[in-house]
Amino acid sequence: MDVFSGYMDKLIGELSSLPGIGSKTAQRLAFHIMYMPQERVESLAKSMTDAREHVHYCKECLTLTDQELCPICANPKRDHKTIMVVENPRDLAAYEKTGKYEGVYHVLHGAISPMLGVGPSDIRLKELLQRLQGDVDELIIATNSSLEGETTAMYISKLVKPTGIRVTRIASGVPVGGDLEYIDEVTLLRALEGRTEL
Amino acid sequence: MDVFSGYMDKLIGELSSLPGIGSKTAQRLAFHIMYMPQERVESLAKSMTDAREHVHYCKECLTLTDQELCPICANPKRDHKTIMVVENPRDLAAYEKTGKYEGVYHVLHGAISPMLGVGPSDIRLKELLQRLQGDVDELIIATNSSLEGETTAMYISKLVKPTGIRVTRIASGVPVGGDLEYIDEVTLLRALEGRTEL
Repeated sequence: MDVFSGYMDKLIGELSSLPGIGSKTAQRLAFHIMYMPQERVESLAKSMTDAREHVHYCKECLTLTDQELCPICANPKRDHKTIMVVENPRDLAAYEKTGKYEGVYHVLHGAISPMLGVGPSDIRLKELLQRLQGDVDELIIATNSSLEGETTAMYISKLVKPTGIRVTRIASGVPVGGDLEYIDEVTLLRALEGRTEL
Repeated sequence: MDVFSGYMDKLIGELSSLPGIGSKTAQRLAFHIMYMPQERVESLAKSMTDAREHVHYCKECLTLTDQELCPICANPKRDHKTIMVVENPRDLAAYEKTGKYEGVYHVLHGAISPMLGVGPSDIRLKELLQRLQGDVDELIIATNSSLEGETTAMYISKLVKPTGIRVTRIASGVPVGGDLEYIDEVTLLRALEGRTEL
């Protein structure tokens, strides 16, 4: 790819180091950037460095924010005695989009994964335990329904239950609108185990 | 998405304006950028503005380059009497990767598309005709095998043939390694029409 220019090669290389961006996509993006007005490129570049510079973890729940406390932790109308534990800020955003959850969150920034060498001390558990020293009624564990998510949920539950705080786990089962024939066996069995009275 | 920060929202908005990047991918990329070391983010941002600032069209063939002439046009070993017409620099790169083509190129930066309102004066045809005033043996039309590419090929061929310069079109047919049963009817018919003696 020495066909164009060292600048293009550098840009393609940088772009293809991003997750989910292969070399073909990186090339397409780089060419697109060449056709963008210069001030739009500067604005895109600035939005990256600005966000990286000003966004940090919320002092309380560790989600990403540009304030000391995120809007959720700073909101006195939220129920600060109910904490939902999520793996990352995107999962928090997904629950916020429902508009129905009124408690607060705790972002672990990962999940325990012996396979990837991620242990309990590599995620933000210490901060969670500190928060539980305060006045907390319920801890809702909303880690993913993956091996890592389940491992993390079990670990937290064992750690927290002795304190007497109510620990719950979000249900796993058939997604709403999901067609049974396309759903994997593990999910189907989970849905069966978790059945409720009608 | 007011959950995180105005900086994050701005970055997600900028990223999702790129081609092929939907709002989910933009969100994933934005979070990835938050976890990147600050100097890596600065280097990514700089590579964009640098490339946009220094890369321009080759004076001769109009591909993207940071020199006055691109390495291909500047190379005296290339056959400057054979010009391959391509729609964009990515198509040029694709033919360069074969390592077998020894002529030079002309980049149209588009294709004629009445549907999208792209006429002959919107692509770099004027510059092609100027180059044909010089010493040219053959013009190989390698626009895409799409409606727009074919229209453009026909248009150029009609324009250039009266000058006596040889005008050829790259073959269309079944891709090498392609399995007939998965190939569309139009391609199969093209391959049949273009059959050669064995």
